[in-house]
Amino acid sequence: MEIIAGGVTAAKGFLAAAAEAGIKYQNRKDMALVYSDTPCRAAGVFTSNVVKAAPVLWDQRVVKNSWEAQAVVINSGIANACTGKLGDEYCWETARETADALNIEADSVLIASTGVIGMQLPIAKLTAGVRSLAKLLAGGEEAGTQAAQAIMTTDTRSKQAAVRVTIGGREVTVGGMCKGSGMIHPNMCTMLAFVTTDVNISRELLQEALSEDVKDTFNMISVDGDTSTNDTLLVLANGQAQNPEITEKNVDYEIFVQALHYVNEELAKKIAGDGEGATALFEAHVIHADTKEHAKTLAKSVITSSLTKAAIFGHDANWGRILCALGYAGVNFDPNRIELYLESEAGKILIFRDGMAADYSEEEATRILSCSEVTALVDMKMGEAEATAWGCDLSYDYVKINADYRS
Amino acid sequence: MEIIAGGVTAAKGFLAAAAEAGIKYQNRKDMALVYSDTPCRAAGVFTSNVVKAAPVLWDQRVVKNSWEAQAVVINSGIANACTGKLGDEYCWETARETADALNIEADSVLIASTGVIGMQLPIAKLTAGVRSLAKLLAGGEEAGTQAAQAIMTTDTRSKQAAVRVTIGGREVTVGGMCKGSGMIHPNMCTMLAFVTTDVNISRELLQEALSEDVKDTFNMISVDGDTSTNDTLLVLANGQAQNPEITEKNVDYEIFVQALHYVNEELAKKIAGDGEGATALFEAHVIHADTKEHAKTLAKSVITSSLTKAAIFGHDANWGRILCALGYAGVNFDPNRIELYLESEAGKILIFRDGMAADYSEEEATRILSCSEVTALVDMKMGEAEATAWGCDLSYDYVKINADYRS
Repeated sequence: MEIIAGGVTAAKGFLAAAAEAGIKYQNRKDMALVYSDTPCRAAGVFTSNVVKAAPVLWDQRVVKNSWEAQAVVINSGIANACTGKLGDEYCWETARETADALNIEADSVLIASTGVIGMQLPIAKLTAGVRSLAKLLAGGEEAGTQAAQAIMTTDTRSKQAAVRVTIGGREVTVGGMCKGSGMIHPNMCTMLAFVTTDVNISRELLQEALSEDVKDTFNMISVDGDTSTNDTLLVLANGQAQNPEITEKNVDYEIFVQALHYVNEELAKKIAGDGEGATALFEAHVIHADTKEHAKTLAKSVITSSLTKAAIFGHDANWGRILCALGYAGVNFDPNRIELYLESEAGKILIFRDGMAADYSEEEATRILSCSEVTALVDMKMGEAEATAWGCDLSYDYVKINADYRS
Repeated sequence: MEIIAGGVTAAKGFLAAAAEAGIKYQNRKDMALVYSDTPCRAAGVFTSNVVKAAPVLWDQRVVKNSWEAQAVVINSGIANACTGKLGDEYCWETARETADALNIEADSVLIASTGVIGMQLPIAKLTAGVRSLAKLLAGGEEAGTQAAQAIMTTDTRSKQAAVRVTIGGREVTVGGMCKGSGMIHPNMCTMLAFVTTDVNISRELLQEALSEDVKDTFNMISVDGDTSTNDTLLVLANGQAQNPEITEKNVDYEIFVQALHYVNEELAKKIAGDGEGATALFEAHVIHADTKEHAKTLAKSVITSSLTKAAIFGHDANWGRILCALGYAGVNFDPNRIELYLESEAGKILIFRDGMAADYSEEEATRILSCSEVTALVDMKMGEAEATAWGCDLSYDYVKINADYRS
């Protein structure tokens, strides 16, 4: 597996564009288009929130009913959620405009929106944006990077990942981009994430690979415990790698799943590490749990604890809060048996053992916690299952950003 | 039902004291003792956290096995959680010292601790504190208030409530005190809360009344979603009101339950409104839900949403976040049917109806949200069930307090 530069334009046949449509932000690109020059098989996972944004409902229909998808049009600034019938109509208008501009069918156009809930989209600006985007489509790294920048909201940096593998003697590429920052606690999916690949795979296996992989990647991150109304993860596969079509779970499938997993995990970690106001990526790695489900529950409980997140922000080895978060996760265990370590590129120390503090140096703990990526390693000593979850610290800036996000 | 001043010393026969033991804080009282001059029936509910502090395990044994309890000794500053065998021994020493000083049995002494997890108690200071407290015991409002102040950690104000009812021709008083502030997301109980009453009631019904009532009071508050290792709610009933003993669920029982409910709800709301860094009490009132469980789940989801809490802090009517929190609560409903109102002493406005924003004034919304108690009223239009949950806003100070709580 070769890690390469780029994102949604890394795989063969994929083009992208970004444009300044003036939807809500001033003086920045706020629309992106991803397009494959041949039709794609599409798979998606979407928010489990009962309150689903109009584009989420639109995409669910397209992924389920359309045999082929070929374009994804994305806007940042306004979420098109809680917008009633008008919100649905705007999705239809956006798809029709995109289809006209690209000479494809409206039901092969996927749509994603992110931003303020409850505001109506300025639809004239949006359709004008679509027409600009269609003319700007281009391949190559720069086009992908511009698209990744255009979908950002409170993100401080754009997020891309790509990887290359060999399947059936052919070079297969998987690349993607995403945006996150706030309202990040995906359930059955993620924020906005778009993965493109030239692999040749059946629609059923593409969906299955995606649905399985999100359980260990996008569903294992959290910034603030809030599951968005707009979470969308889409994969488009155009088959241009010309590998023998993957139609069963053979070695080719496994290689593709590994490549997809790499891209998904990288994108998910980038979202967690760039959570609103975050100064550090905070990872919880639970090992030797009795079941995988318990390992996941424990890991997520640690990275979602507000008190633990505030302590990470303060570089304070307040391990009692980690123990506390493990304790209320809803998993039974003996606190006297488990071990807790803190780890980063600055080192690794044992913090807790035999039901009480281990003999560690506070200075060393603070040094470890002062890195930009920090891991709490929890050894449950119960079995062989493990899981990792990713979050971030809780800072003043999280409050600042969210106390007046609308204004 | 007559609302009266005072707290744990309001009921007949109850004395209290506070002392400066120097456990962790400097120049403030950090230990309290509550004592009944006759033996009491005791009931309690405790944290559901798997990681339970030593005093929680001690109290669970006392409430279950001892026929009578007569004293509660409390310290703030150190939680005596995750302290291994030594933590258990210190509970035993504290109980023995208290029993000696008061000439009662050690197994009629209840213990509660709150503060930093993982540190060992300075036991010599604690036992010296117990001896001072025993000498300082007094009745009356002032003694109760001093005790309520001594149990505070990051609380900004002490918390008491008391009420008087007539049962079987006798005047019955129920009073209590509590502390909260951070790590507040009680499950099966609350932070530290102590209720005293002179009612004459069987031990079984006292426990049942308490266990039932916490479901609608202490279990419906949250400051930060973190369920503590030390949550403890104790009720002591000494029978000195001399009402005919309550041994069945008759009218007398109902009156007592109402009085208990008043005190519990007041104390719970005081904890929510004084959450770490809070500037406002934030109430979610869900009406016309299909079941009580659903109403509770929806109400709690709203008051625990970090994004909603930050918006309340910013006095921003960002109602999309409330809709979002309802949507991910795990309860099925039709977003197009529900109505959302914002309410406070400054007025009440309809914010959301028919799946989209209602026609409201942002200025009026901001005025309503600028009060110190704010309610989100959600009409589910599904049935007859309702529930209320209480939380607080999320401010810079929450982060500040918790980024370096240990230091």
